Amino acid sequence: MRDFLPEDVRRRTYVIGVIAGVYQKYGFEPLETPSVENIETLLGKYGEEGNQLIFKILKRGVHESTGEADLALRYDLTVPLARVMAEHRAKLPRLFRRYQIQPVWRADRPGRGRFREFYQCDVDITGSTSPVVEAELCAAVSDCLEALGFAEFTIRLNHRGVLRAVLASAQVPVEKHTDALVALDKLDKIGPDGVTAEFVTRGIDPACAARLLGWLGAEVSDDWLGQFERGLGDLDDQGRAAFANLREIIRLSMATSAGRHLTFEPSLARGLSYYTGAIMEIGVPDLPGSLGGGGRYDNLVGMFSKEGIPSCGFSLGLERILVVMGEQGLFPASVAGAAADVLVATMRPEDAAYAMRVATTLRGQGLRVMVYPDAGKIQKPLKYAEEVRIPCVAILGESEVARDEVTLKFLASRHQEVAGLEQAGAVARQHLGDVRG
Amino acid sequence: MRDFLPEDVRRRTYVIGVIAGVYQKYGFEPLETPSVENIETLLGKYGEEGNQLIFKILKRGVHESTGEADLALRYDLTVPLARVMAEHRAKLPRLFRRYQIQPVWRADRPGRGRFREFYQCDVDITGSTSPVVEAELCAAVSDCLEALGFAEFTIRLNHRGVLRAVLASAQVPVEKHTDALVALDKLDKIGPDGVTAEFVTRGIDPACAARLLGWLGAEVSDDWLGQFERGLGDLDDQGRAAFANLREIIRLSMATSAGRHLTFEPSLARGLSYYTGAIMEIGVPDLPGSLGGGGRYDNLVGMFSKEGIPSCGFSLGLERILVVMGEQGLFPASVAGAAADVLVATMRPEDAAYAMRVATTLRGQGLRVMVYPDAGKIQKPLKYAEEVRIPCVAILGESEVARDEVTLKFLASRHQEVAGLEQAGAVARQHLGDVRG
Repeated sequence: MRDFLPEDVRRRTYVIGVIAGVYQKYGFEPLETPSVENIETLLGKYGEEGNQLIFKILKRGVHESTGEADLALRYDLTVPLARVMAEHRAKLPRLFRRYQIQPVWRADRPGRGRFREFYQCDVDITGSTSPVVEAELCAAVSDCLEALGFAEFTIRLNHRGVLRAVLASAQVPVEKHTDALVALDKLDKIGPDGVTAEFVTRGIDPACAARLLGWLGAEVSDDWLGQFERGLGDLDDQGRAAFANLREIIRLSMATSAGRHLTFEPSLARGLSYYTGAIMEIGVPDLPGSLGGGGRYDNLVGMFSKEGIPSCGFSLGLERILVVMGEQGLFPASVAGAAADVLVATMRPEDAAYAMRVATTLRGQGLRVMVYPDAGKIQKPLKYAEEVRIPCVAILGESEVARDEVTLKFLASRHQEVAGLEQAGAVARQHLGDVRG
Repeated sequence: MRDFLPEDVRRRTYVIGVIAGVYQKYGFEPLETPSVENIETLLGKYGEEGNQLIFKILKRGVHESTGEADLALRYDLTVPLARVMAEHRAKLPRLFRRYQIQPVWRADRPGRGRFREFYQCDVDITGSTSPVVEAELCAAVSDCLEALGFAEFTIRLNHRGVLRAVLASAQVPVEKHTDALVALDKLDKIGPDGVTAEFVTRGIDPACAARLLGWLGAEVSDDWLGQFERGLGDLDDQGRAAFANLREIIRLSMATSAGRHLTFEPSLARGLSYYTGAIMEIGVPDLPGSLGGGGRYDNLVGMFSKEGIPSCGFSLGLERILVVMGEQGLFPASVAGAAADVLVATMRPEDAAYAMRVATTLRGQGLRVMVYPDAGKIQKPLKYAEEVRIPCVAILGESEVARDEVTLKFLASRHQEVAGLEQAGAVARQHLGDVRG
């Protein structure tokens, strides 16, 4: 877990601001949930590998010595949303669009852009099974990435129903579907041989893997979705509906920025066990893994209340977005700003009260002002201003104090000018504007 | 711990934005630290009562069954700052002004405006012992509260050196000073009799309590600080320096907004054990406890590295500020906004792609737009728009789709108007501006 020093925070704040702004354009409302959930809320929602990555919190007080945990840090923002939908149902519209940008925690091994505490930027729509939902979500995250300056990215699209149909056609027994998906989900990382090996370990006939990998490795045509569907032969109603759903999501997305980024990716499995329909993942060139992902989870809210609510969501990973933006130089110059516009410095301790008055006045005139706390030789505050890149030092000597004046020294131009206290803000702003402009 | 529904988040975001804006005006730079710290970092920094309120995290994997904790949720933002100053010393200026607005966790009993997960809005200045530091901090938090609309509040000021002098004059033995301060800190809650009782429980002569409470209960004059100092009789150098320090902090604050809110409060003790100099706390009428507090802690950084750095900080409590603002009606009307400006609705499923095109176009024209996902009778989206207070519905029927048009229906005025797709944004903005204006 990491500390974020000022420039890190400015970068993060910039990206979060852009993403929140796009989400708001799509009518998503902000939601925040506590970092800590009851442990039962989280367990059993993420599949076999997720459970092991949950940070658990010891009971307090006299129960501490039992070594038992009753609370845990949230693992994602989707399960908390489902709990909120069940718990606050009366206060929320059934058709609810929310965004949530908060940290989550996973006791995972860290890697490039992967940390144990990291931020997710989620959008979800609850209350409808329409493919408009998936299309709106893809459009929103696509707009986010374009607004941040990403030129090339791919929204990979698949469907749990397509995966079911593929596994059935490959003759994987139904009771082994979850195992097969867990293996398939690692295709990116471990390759076809790794997947075949994992099939064997999990007690699935390697011939199934061969069939599966044959379809997935076929050459992609312009009508990859249709070609893939035909290749599977006769499908049942569920399988046909899944393909039709994907076709409609793609059709609806054509009028949005997502249209040019969407591609059908039949090997995409997504690890989390709560997905029920379309699943999505965003990739960029040269970055293994993804910038984010999501999917439809129509049964999750129902695990917290009698009545379910169909839902679908997309999550952008802040840390990986920051890594790629750093590598590609996508941050605007403004995020590397100085902490203040003016540093107020005195030479004699008895002038500190005048320094406070100067600072109050300049702040009232719209400037960001820091008072250098220790009086003395002017070299020290000048050196400090250079070190922390404050562009202007307001020097208060005996004569300035006597006449309600300020000597403004601009570090870049080395220009120096005496101004009356009431005019000092305007003078500073004009010169700093020149420097910045 | 609480969920924050959209209006809650908007209120919180508004307050955080105002506070961060003021802090930036004072040249404070943003810092963020992880929610989770090594448990040794936190233990032993907060005094006897703090340690018990720390949420501890179980070791993971094979170590889980030991019931041992190696991590913990942070209890405040001051100890993490001290750790950061020690750990990242080379990357940070010694004179460092940082603000940090993040949640902290305490396993405390909840009360009005008191929760187990809550946000602190901290400002700290490290690297100087000058009273300018205290004055800048008091001015910053005072500006925050004034910017939020607080009219009446008091910044109570005291000094650990004054407390030491008072306890010495009251003949409390030095080894009982910490006990006496813990008791005195509760004067607000348990009254003079409670403090006397706690003195006895802690093995301190109740005559000490009587002397102490006599001074603290004396009638306050215009020169309360001077009167109080004289009442204590002869002081040692440390005691005199503490009073002189407070006098200088008050003098420097007179040129800032804090001047009219500062009062000397000799009974103020502040529970945390890391304070070494001036201590501050903000009170408002009719709210027991405080909106925030802080003080000087010159030895805390030294607990994490060989070389110490004198430091001082102030922390505003977000939750209590929100409670008082709610009770006093201080939120601007803008925080109760609708999620979107326009709801796009279709009657026929085949028009969904046109709906996506309309939404994309209107968003490009600066509007916040939501697509109603399910086609059908127009009553449903109209009712929904009313429920979630979206002021305009874009209705797409057969003829609108055929002609690239949109029928805009404004719910407040019941005005309805057909517009070409390219003009629709301007028409909607004009009408919504009228309604809002």
